[in-house]
Amino acid sequence: MSDQGALLELVQANRILAHERVLDAFGHVSIRDTEAGYHISRSRSPELVSLEDIQHYDADSKIVGSDTRGGYLERVIHGAIYRVRPDVRAVCHFHSPSIMPFCVTGRPWMPVTHLGATVGMTVPFWDEQAKFGDTDMLVSTAEQGASLAAALRAHSAVLLRNHGAVVVGGGIPELVMRSIQLCRNADVLMQSLAVGEPRSLTPGEVTLSGAKNLEPRVLERVWDYHLSRAGLDG
Amino acid sequence: MSDQGALLELVQANRILAHERVLDAFGHVSIRDTEAGYHISRSRSPELVSLEDIQHYDADSKIVGSDTRGGYLERVIHGAIYRVRPDVRAVCHFHSPSIMPFCVTGRPWMPVTHLGATVGMTVPFWDEQAKFGDTDMLVSTAEQGASLAAALRAHSAVLLRNHGAVVVGGGIPELVMRSIQLCRNADVLMQSLAVGEPRSLTPGEVTLSGAKNLEPRVLERVWDYHLSRAGLDG
Amino acid sequence: MSDQGALLELVQANRILAHERVLDAFGHVSIRDTEAGYHISRSRSPELVSLEDIQHYDADSKIVGSDTRGGYLERVIHGAIYRVRPDVRAVCHFHSPSIMPFCVTGRPWMPVTHLGATVGMTVPFWDEQAKFGDTDMLVSTAEQGASLAAALRAHSAVLLRNHGAVVVGGGIPELVMRSIQLCRNADVLMQSLAVGEPRSLTPGEVTLSGAKNLEPRVLERVWDYHLSRAGLDG
Amino acid sequence: MSDQGALLELVQANRILAHERVLDAFGHVSIRDTEAGYHISRSRSPELVSLEDIQHYDADSKIVGSDTRGGYLERVIHGAIYRVRPDVRAVCHFHSPSIMPFCVTGRPWMPVTHLGATVGMTVPFWDEQAKFGDTDMLVSTAEQGASLAAALRAHSAVLLRNHGAVVVGGGIPELVMRSIQLCRNADVLMQSLAVGEPRSLTPGEVTLSGAKNLEPRVLERVWDYHLSRAGLDG
Repeated sequence: MSDQGALLELVQANRILAHERVLDAFGHVSIRDTEAGYHISRSRSPELVSLEDIQHYDADSKIVGSDTRGGYLERVIHGAIYRVRPDVRAVCHFHSPSIMPFCVTGRPWMPVTHLGATVGMTVPFWDEQAKFGDTDMLVSTAEQGASLAAALRAHSAVLLRNHGAVVVGGGIPELVMRSIQLCRNADVLMQSLAVGEPRSLTPGEVTLSGAKNLEPRVLERVWDYHLSRAGLDG
Repeated sequence: MSDQGALLELVQANRILAHERVLDAFGHVSIRDTEAGYHISRSRSPELVSLEDIQHYDADSKIVGSDTRGGYLERVIHGAIYRVRPDVRAVCHFHSPSIMPFCVTGRPWMPVTHLGATVGMTVPFWDEQAKFGDTDMLVSTAEQGASLAAALRAHSAVLLRNHGAVVVGGGIPELVMRSIQLCRNADVLMQSLAVGEPRSLTPGEVTLSGAKNLEPRVLERVWDYHLSRAGLDG
Repeated sequence: MSDQGALLELVQANRILAHERVLDAFGHVSIRDTEAGYHISRSRSPELVSLEDIQHYDADSKIVGSDTRGGYLERVIHGAIYRVRPDVRAVCHFHSPSIMPFCVTGRPWMPVTHLGATVGMTVPFWDEQAKFGDTDMLVSTAEQGASLAAALRAHSAVLLRNHGAVVVGGGIPELVMRSIQLCRNADVLMQSLAVGEPRSLTPGEVTLSGAKNLEPRVLERVWDYHLSRAGLDG
Repeated sequence: MSDQGALLELVQANRILAHERVLDAFGHVSIRDTEAGYHISRSRSPELVSLEDIQHYDADSKIVGSDTRGGYLERVIHGAIYRVRPDVRAVCHFHSPSIMPFCVTGRPWMPVTHLGATVGMTVPFWDEQAKFGDTDMLVSTAEQGASLAAALRAHSAVLLRNHGAVVVGGGIPELVMRSIQLCRNADVLMQSLAVGEPRSLTPGEVTLSGAKNLEPRVLERVWDYHLSRAGLDG
């Protein structure tokens, strides 16, 4: 069982990502449990989530204990990724307007700002239709979760055709930074397409800049900023 | 006569749809009466509507009782649709910036997100100019209302050339969800056109995803979210 | 000298048009005096204007009385239009982002929504560079004011190349409605260009819809809405 | 050492530029010291900066005194510019979404509004990749700072490839006005590209209008406006 500090950070991530328009009525964020499985809110819009809403699921995305409140239908996304990516300690799924044009057209996302380097050089694309035919488009079975986790490979984000994105991180502050920068870089890329020919960062720039963006002092500064903007700074 | 709970929900729908920029200075939302006709605000901007503003009209869009306050000029839209669509229990008309580019160009709206599936596969297009020649562009006569209702057919929304949209639902929460998703899907579609070739959902995906989006637990979660955002959660 | 009610309405128009992002740090709005000349704020950003800021200018844009506070450099726009347009009782000048792309490219504005009909079928274009060569781009001399007023002719708005717009009205509520709809229609037109081929309203539609939009009950409803949004409803 | 009034103005500039979406989680603003070097916040998001956060650096961007709090990694930008531009008394670096499409595509910024004339006729472009190869994309060494300052030449702004902008001014109010107008003009230019062929101001217009925009009465009015919007007017 994770401690209260970790769960509080999870609640803050819900609020911050809603405030920054990454999450909206839908979407969810989780942290890996200290033992197995993960913590995530019951089915509730992220900007409303508080500590009482957090549930505990095991590695098969089955509820731990006697909590009978309904969970997110797509929580298997989280369980499936934690299973195959031991480096991942936090996961977020969302449908922000920033990334949807890339999900809808299949045009590849690419890093065009030094902050976008936080996401990496490549974001793979997962097409549920190609794998499972006509569905309700949710990722709600173990097979669908495993397929999505396989598409993510060793990357830090994946786009879902006509659906949204999944982002992973080594912890909550990193996940929040990366989720926001996936969106902001997508905004810049979209507008750049109307202005001219966008230049991608080089792999070397992504490696060097991506590491710099995740230094503790950078993450702390960004976290303080977002706490304040979301009205969570006490 | 509908009960107070239903009328309160109607007031909340006015406020929510104004808060989410579906309605603005103009636009209106109604619920079918339990007997005949419908309830709708007097002529007032939706974000200002309160319980005292709600009026009662009969199936011919004539006021019921002695209420002499001016009504919306386009209330015939509501009466005409309730007459031919017994499945419809709530109607909304609006001119949001999200849908206007489709109304102005005639380019078809299509579902490109799983949430857009809530609207359906097709949104028909009604051209008042083609039917009635030069008018003041309002839908204010019985003939115009009937023509629009006929164009809607069995769909859940219709676009009005150079004017706006009409959306219908089996109840207020469904209507609110669908009106918002018509707009958000339009936003994504518009931005996707600048990024590449948008992929439509398949008919099978629309059927399966559209049904999932209207499950009570989804509608309740969305309703709670919008109540909170509009400052209506007590 | 206009009465206090008229001056209060002028102050409200400043606040409303700033709140709706028509005016920003710059721009100004005036009302014709009951005798001659006009009332307008001293040089101050419109969202800060209060009753104490209102000044009185004569038909030559010279201050009336002993008020020594600095006025807007471009107040001659107002004087010049009141001189040649006896039907005009209120004038507004602004540089909103909505209309600037049309000022910068020279692409004609056209009415594409029934609310845009409030502006009319045509918005003429005034090019200070073509008339006066290199200037500071302000309209600050009597000759420049007269040239601009001549370009306006009998229309209700004019665009200034690389600069902004001037809108006129038969009173403050009409001016506010028209200024906002010039901008909102420009937004829709701009986005429609990315979606397809925009259809203009017909001249007949503009005449009929434009008149409808200026009916007292419509203007009152819009005015109440904007007062409320700007926090001015008491 | 600068007096308290100057440092307070620096704090206000941080808050104003954050409020106007020029600065965000990142970016920084400095003033030249009355002796040598400059004042700038410790490493903190600009909208959180207060008087206690201001640090003092010498001309080599080394801390003055015993302040051990971490500074901005890119503060060399400020030191390098103050060294070669004695006319500059304030510097700002930012990554606003308005200018990023120009940084990403290399399409030249140009003045298309009379307020954009505040920036000048030309904004040079600095490509760190071309000068230094793969880096972490920050400007954090003396050599990088000197290279950037050289690219700025006698201009009042410079764009950094895939990174952002640096703007300079003869004082804080001028810097704030220019930074905002660089962004707003970029917004208009970007939208104009979707509407037609943008017309640049002429060099003569830029000279005349640019000077007018920096008159004390204009800067005072703009400063009051921004103080009020940022909630800093007492």
